[in-house]
This record gives sequence, C-alpha cells and structure tokens, in this order.
Amino acid sequence: MTRPVIDLNSDIGEGFGPWPMGDDDALLSIVTSANVACGYHAGDPTVMRKVCALAAERGITIGAQVGYRDLPGFGRRFIDADPRELVNDAVYQIAALDGFARLAGTSVAYVKPHGALYNAVVHHEAQARALADAVSRYDSTLAVLGLPGSAWLAVATDFGLTTVHEAFADRAYTPEGTLVSRREPGAVLHDPDVIVQRCLRMVTEGVVEAIDGSQLPLAVDSLCVHGDTPGAVRIARRLREELRDEGLTVRSFAAPAATREEPVG
Amino acid sequence: MTRPVIDLNSDIGEGFGPWPMGDDDALLSIVTSANVACGYHAGDPTVMRKVCALAAERGITIGAQVGYRDLPGFGRRFIDADPRELVNDAVYQIAALDGFARLAGTSVAYVKPHGALYNAVVHHEAQARALADAVSRYDSTLAVLGLPGSAWLAVATDFGLTTVHEAFADRAYTPEGTLVSRREPGAVLHDPDVIVQRCLRMVTEGVVEAIDGSQLPLAVDSLCVHGDTPGAVRIARRLREELRDEGLTVRSFAAPAATREEPVG
Amino acid sequence: MTRPVIDLNSDIGEGFGPWPMGDDDALLSIVTSANVACGYHAGDPTVMRKVCALAAERGITIGAQVGYRDLPGFGRRFIDADPRELVNDAVYQIAALDGFARLAGTSVAYVKPHGALYNAVVHHEAQARALADAVSRYDSTLAVLGLPGSAWLAVATDFGLTTVHEAFADRAYTPEGTLVSRREPGAVLHDPDVIVQRCLRMVTEGVVEAIDGSQLPLAVDSLCVHGDTPGAVRIARRLREELRDEGLTVRSFAAPAATREEPVG
Amino acid sequence: MTRPVIDLNSDIGEGFGPWPMGDDDALLSIVTSANVACGYHAGDPTVMRKVCALAAERGITIGAQVGYRDLPGFGRRFIDADPRELVNDAVYQIAALDGFARLAGTSVAYVKPHGALYNAVVHHEAQARALADAVSRYDSTLAVLGLPGSAWLAVATDFGLTTVHEAFADRAYTPEGTLVSRREPGAVLHDPDVIVQRCLRMVTEGVVEAIDGSQLPLAVDSLCVHGDTPGAVRIARRLREELRDEGLTVRSFAAPAATREEPVG
Repeated sequence: MTRPVIDLNSDIGEGFGPWPMGDDDALLSIVTSANVACGYHAGDPTVMRKVCALAAERGITIGAQVGYRDLPGFGRRFIDADPRELVNDAVYQIAALDGFARLAGTSVAYVKPHGALYNAVVHHEAQARALADAVSRYDSTLAVLGLPGSAWLAVATDFGLTTVHEAFADRAYTPEGTLVSRREPGAVLHDPDVIVQRCLRMVTEGVVEAIDGSQLPLAVDSLCVHGDTPGAVRIARRLREELRDEGLTVRSFAAPAATREEPVG
Repeated sequence: MTRPVIDLNSDIGEGFGPWPMGDDDALLSIVTSANVACGYHAGDPTVMRKVCALAAERGITIGAQVGYRDLPGFGRRFIDADPRELVNDAVYQIAALDGFARLAGTSVAYVKPHGALYNAVVHHEAQARALADAVSRYDSTLAVLGLPGSAWLAVATDFGLTTVHEAFADRAYTPEGTLVSRREPGAVLHDPDVIVQRCLRMVTEGVVEAIDGSQLPLAVDSLCVHGDTPGAVRIARRLREELRDEGLTVRSFAAPAATREEPVG
Repeated sequence: MTRPVIDLNSDIGEGFGPWPMGDDDALLSIVTSANVACGYHAGDPTVMRKVCALAAERGITIGAQVGYRDLPGFGRRFIDADPRELVNDAVYQIAALDGFARLAGTSVAYVKPHGALYNAVVHHEAQARALADAVSRYDSTLAVLGLPGSAWLAVATDFGLTTVHEAFADRAYTPEGTLVSRREPGAVLHDPDVIVQRCLRMVTEGVVEAIDGSQLPLAVDSLCVHGDTPGAVRIARRLREELRDEGLTVRSFAAPAATREEPVG
Repeated sequence: MTRPVIDLNSDIGEGFGPWPMGDDDALLSIVTSANVACGYHAGDPTVMRKVCALAAERGITIGAQVGYRDLPGFGRRFIDADPRELVNDAVYQIAALDGFARLAGTSVAYVKPHGALYNAVVHHEAQARALADAVSRYDSTLAVLGLPGSAWLAVATDFGLTTVHEAFADRAYTPEGTLVSRREPGAVLHDPDVIVQRCLRMVTEGVVEAIDGSQLPLAVDSLCVHGDTPGAVRIARRLREELRDEGLTVRSFAAPAATREEPVG
C-alpha cells in the first residue's frame, strides 16, 4: 500500500482587497497543487489572476477552493445552504477561477471544499451531493480532493469523479481516521521532526499513529500543508525536501502534472 | 446601409436572492440575445443558471452583462475602479456566467457593460480598454455590444474584437448620436407606435430622427428593449412582431444564431 | 388570562437597493409595531430611514429585526456564528437602526430576531444568549419579541429584559406550542375567516386549537401578520378591524404606545 | 496664530473578518483621537467593539471614519453615490459605531470621511453637503474633521457644526495648501526628523514649508499620523514625545478630552 508518488497541496490566494493573507509566493515554490480561493470566503479577481499566473508558470496544478458565501466569517461557519442553491454557488466559483486559469494557459484540475464546507461534507450528504453535482456538471474530468471516509468522496465516486485522498501534515488523527477537533489538546502538531516523520510514514508505509497510540492505515494521495505563518512555510519546505531525499516523487495527482515534477529544483 | 437582419437584446437575470426583477420568462420569448447579469451589480448563481438554461433551450444567444461590483447601487453609480483591477473583475464575471452557459450546453457569445459602466466606457478610455482587454484575454471570439461611437467599441476594434452596434428602442437621441440624458424631458419614449416606427426606420433605412428634428444616420445591429414593467414587455413583443411582419429577420448577431431564427414562432 | 390589549407586528423595510419587497406603506397603516430590517439580511440605509420616518409619523413602535449577515440567503439559512461575534453583529444592527429612529424623533423600542435566527434561538442557547447580551448591553430598557417557550425569551428574562410573547396569525401550532414546520401540510393558514377567528380566540380566551385538535393555552401580547402579498395585506387589515370591532385595544406593548392607540382611526 | 494644544488622530479598526490591518493597540497608546472604520470600507462589529473599548479605557476620543460602501476597494475608489442616499449611508455608519461607543461608556464625538470620500468632499459640494447633513441630523454636537479649505469644512460650517482642521504629518503641501498628489515625487515624507520638525513648526508657528519652498500659513487643530507599518508607528510615537517635550499639550479637540490629557504618561 506504499505510495512512491505524493502531492503537496495548500490553500492559496486567500487575501481580499487591501488585506493580504499568507505567503503565496513562498508556498507556490513548495506545493504541487494550489487550492485557490474563488471570492466567496476569500480571494478577489486580482489575487486569483495573480496566483493562477504564478501557479501556471511554475507547473503547479490549480484547484478551486470552494467555500460558503461568507467573507466576514472566512467560510469557517457552517451555513445551512439549500443544496439546490449550493450546487450553483459551487459552479459559479469553479467557473470564475477557471477563467483565470484560462488566462494563464491552463485550467482548473480539481475541487476542494474550504473550511466549514470541508467539515460539513464529511457527514452532510445533501451538501456533499450538491458539490459533486456541481463538479460533475461543470467538468466531469475534474478530480475532487477530500478526507478519506468522507461523504464527499463517497458521493463523488457515485458521480464517477476521480477522488484524491488527502492527509494533514500537522493534525492528529482519531483511531477512526477523523481529525482530532482543534478544541482538544494535541490536535495540532508543531514539532517539525514529528510532522516530517509522520508524513514520511504515511506516504511510504500507509500508516499513521492515531492519538491513542494505535496504528491507523491511511491511503494518502496528497498532503495538506499550511502557510499562514513563517514557521508553517519553513515546515512545508522542509517536508518537501525530506520527501525528495527519501526518493519519493513529489508530483500532483492531476494529469498535466506529468510534466511538472520537481518545479523547485 | 439598410439591415435586413436585426437582433433584439435585453437585460436578463437581474434578480438577487429573495428579490426578483423583471419578467425573464416573457423577455426570453421575445429577444434573440440575453444580457445576463453576473452577480456583481445583480444576479446570483441560481438565477444565472435558470436563465442560461432557458435561453439555451430557446436558442437565444447568451451575453455577459458585466457591471461594477455594487449590488446596493445596482451598478448604476460610476466607480473610479483601477483599470488593472477592472479587467479582472470583468474576467471573473464573464467566466462565471460561461460556467452556467456550459451547463446549458452552450457558451457566452458576447459582452455588454451595464449601467454606469456602460456610460463610463462611452468616454473613459482606460476603463474601456480594461473591458476589451478582459474579453480579448478570456476569449477573443466573443463579440462586444455597445453604443456606436463609443470608446468601448473603438478600443474593442483595436483589440480585433467583433463589435455589435446597438440602438435603444425607447430613447431619444441627440444630433450627435448620443442618448439624451434621462434628466431631460423627452429622453424616454413611451408611445408604442412611435417606438415601433422609429425602430423600423432605424433597421430598414439606417436613420433615426434626433430630438432636434434632424435626421441621424445610425447603423444598427441590435435593438435594446426593456422588460422592467408589463408595459415594456408588451412593447417589446409588439416590436418583434412588427419587425417580422415587415419581412425582417430577427436573429442574433452571434454565429450559433444561425439555428436560432424565430424561436417564438 | 384574557388580554384586552393586543399588538400587531409585521416585518417592514425588507427591500434592498433596487429591489423592493412588500407593501410597507400599507402595512404601516395596519400594524402597531414595525420589525424593521437593519441591512444584514435585508434593508438598506435609505429604506431604513424612510420606514422609520413613516412609522414615527404614524405613532408605530419601531423594533430592530436582527438577522444573520446573509443578503443572498435573506437570513433564512442557519449560520453557525460564533456567539462572541453574533453579539456584536446584533449591537451593530440595533444601533444603526436606532440612528434612523433618532432622525425620526423616536428610538428603537424592541428587538426581534429574523428568519433562521428566529428559529435558531428557540433552541440554541448560546446564540440566544448572545442576542440577549447585545440588547442588555445596548439598552436594557428594550423589549424582546419572540416565541413563547423559546430559549430566547427565557434567556432574555435572565438578563432582566422585558419579554413580549407573539403568536402567528396564519400558522398552525403543534400541541406543544411550537409552529408546525412549513414543510408539513396545513402549516400555513390561508382562509381569512379561520385566521381572524383563531386570532380573536387567542387574544380573548388565551387558547388556540393545535393541529391535532387539542386546545393549547397561549399567552399572547402580539400577533405577527405578513404583508408579502396583496392577499396578506388584506387579511391583516381585516384582522385589525375585527379586533377593534370586538372591543379590543390594538396598541403596541412599548411604553410610548400610550399615545399611539388606534393610529388608523 | 500659534496653538499650544494639539490633537493626534489616526485611522483605527481597519481589519475585516479574518484579515487584520495595522497595529491598533500601539496607535491607541499614541493618538488622542481614533478615526474608527464603521464596516463600509473596512472594520466589522467585533473590531469596532474592541477598539471602542480600548479607546474609551484610555480616554481617547472616538470618531466615525465614514466611507463609501466598498470593502474590496477599501473605500479608495470614488463612487458617484447619490447624495440623497449617501446621507443615509453616513447616518448608518455613525449610528452603528455609536452603539459600540455606548457599550464602552462613551459616544462618538466627531466624523471624518475616509479615502476617496475624503478626497471627494474637498471639492464635491453635493457629497460634502450629504455628509454634513447626516452629522447634523444625527447629532449636531459632533465635530467634523477635515482638510482646511475643503468644501466639507465650509459646508459643515454652514450647518453650524464645529470644524477641526487637520494637517498631515508625513505629506507635502502645494503652495495653495492642498496635498501634493501621491503620484508626484516628494509627496510622502519618510525622514522622521523632517516630519517632526515640520509638525512642531505647524503647531507652534502655524506655518509649513510648501513643496516649492514657499511658507504656507496653516491653522492646525489635529495632526494625522499613520500606523500601517512598524516604521510609521515609531514616527508617530516619537512625534508625540517631541510635542510633549516642547511643552505642547497633546489632547483631543473634543470636550471630554479635558480629562484625557496625556493618557500615555
């Protein structure tokens, strides 16, 4: 079950108007897939264009980071959106981003829900189905990125979509394979050595140690890294380097990624 | 200079959330080109999807009605937007709408600015250039709809874009070919007979009587009609019927319109 | 337990920008308390000023109709807002409306949550507490309007606020005193005779027949009427007339209402 | 013409949702008047409450920094808003902020327009009049802060409002007393020594050297400082210290400021 090829993904383009967020330029020298915000929970057209251009130039796969329409809440608050409208909200965001990918000579290759929507579609069948329906209708060749075991990936499979399983580099897992809630102690890992070792084991052995010490099997196609602090960017960079040093191929799951291996050099 | 083929365009999909506007269904049984709002000054994803589906089903050409980001002002207030950002705002709107056109099996075929942006790009070179740049970058086969003599059409021509000249069915003209300001008496025509006769003459003779009584030559590819009141819808319907009765072909200027002739029957 | 004095309340000022909603002028000739939208789920400053001026001129009590920040969803979608932020969202809305009440020579007298927030605070203790906290901090003499038996009214009582119990003129009740969900048959009443008779009985006898035929005791200070259709406005007007013909005093619960009796004449 | 008492003002509370901006805490240990954003161009209810509480605790006068409704443009783009609506937009913002001032045991004491609105009302009579009308109607005891010679201050005087003349610590002036455009070289001063010496001279002598070397008389009640960079905060702090060392009283122009002298100590 070991995986010699691994993708690194991160949230990108989360500034809005006069307010920047994160270090997009640095992250786009590390990751192989960029989850670009589409203006609903973060991002604006000028940021979207800029990061799409940069991603394309560096051979990084572009994904639509779809969220609830909630700028002040940054998409981190569950909204009980009508699935018949949520499907359209998702199409709107994917298509808008695709426009900027098009300007950069490429196209959106996958969809990843953001924040509260990410958490909702782990269990919320109707919202998960709305998202998968949106992807399927817009372009059924797009991949969907999400949590292994989620309703989102299950429903996407029903729709015939390609699913990509992601693991979180810096988060603790329950024995059942879900994330330990951020409200509980130990939910977020900070030690770079621990983070790197866990990621290497996930990728090479397909196993991670859960918070209770049990060994959890985990099939991982992509590792999610963060870039909201200088420290997080350093960890992400180191992770990428160690994955390479272990002989792993860091490459996007998406087809065009074949030509995108090791853009950092 | 007479034109045996004429397009009818109207603003469509200007509702937002719980608030409807206009009679989209009725207008989409009359016009051959639908200027669909894209969510910046009006419209939301659910309305956009619905009117795109209806337009496609009826063989009506879909255009992006691009506006300033100003829902409370309905895009009717000039915003001194930075052209380097306005170009991206336009791409965002066109691409988002194109997503819903795609769901309906078709694609956006043209771009028409809305409200204050429409008026601005008559003279505002930098904003006109930003819009034309957006169209050109997104898809240089898209046509642009606007006022004859405007900076918008001139710049679009520089960009190599196809231009479509529109006239307003119910507005008075100055001897110079600009619209008489709504603040002046006689700016808006209300008599259906007058409106129909003027339109017929514009299309068949390429001439309209200006507000001072002079005869103004006017090359018209498309007539803009309104649907914000039941009376306006009735006038638009009658106009269409009389154009047909005069032996004119009412058809969109856009290529796919070849199969869209006379959808009303 | 009979109540010889009764208030009529209705949602007012729910237009936004170019989009009107409801017949504010007609409703403000019927009700004694106006739940004015504050710009978060509906309403804008110009509408707020206009309806506050009209309400003040007619001696109608002004209340803040506080909602989630969700214009496209009209505040009808539950948002899992952080109570530590929701309290501030509520203060913002109440204070903004109070500014327009001030311009009209009066002040906001009560607070009523709107839509999904109304439904949430029936059970959601933390959001209910956030709202009551906001009212208490802003002006502890404001009354709070809500559903009898709700967490909202219970928490408001804990905060020492004056509570006003409302009943819905056109909704069916469960034997437990909650509203029958709109998704179930018979949830909304349409027959004007039935509506009027139920309201009279609620006010004079303190009893309403639940959907299962059982007799439900119900203490009512205010009846909520709607005005979203011409038919609804007619029913509201007739209800007011019949209440008066039965010798009841239709008057707001709020103190200044002493001078506001029977503004319609 | 010398002024032994001087106010320091700065823009405060310009974060929005997940996006912070500036160092409010540091600035609120330096200035005597806080121009607090009200949610239209920046700011949200939670930020507004926080900075109002901090300002009140430290005896700093709170002003409403009123802007165009334009979050993505940060209020820096002129909007040709209808004055009949702009007056209501201003009331809404002032009143909302006043709510948070009220929670902090104080009240809004003045109004200062932000960004493009600040620049517009230097010349735009109708928008200036709308703002002054809003202040006058909401609370005619509020002061108005602005550029000496502007339409804004002239109109406010017509309305009987108290005007406060401000100078910019780090900006170059034309011989006519207007600011040198940021697009021109030398428009913004960076040398702390130069900035401090100019400010001292403005306050003690009522004169500043214009960009052409001429001596410009300038009556100054308040100096505007910035805090958008660590360097700007350092300059502001040093300016305050040197003003004090020169024997000047750094104190707000507003009445309650009598008890607020030297809060920093």
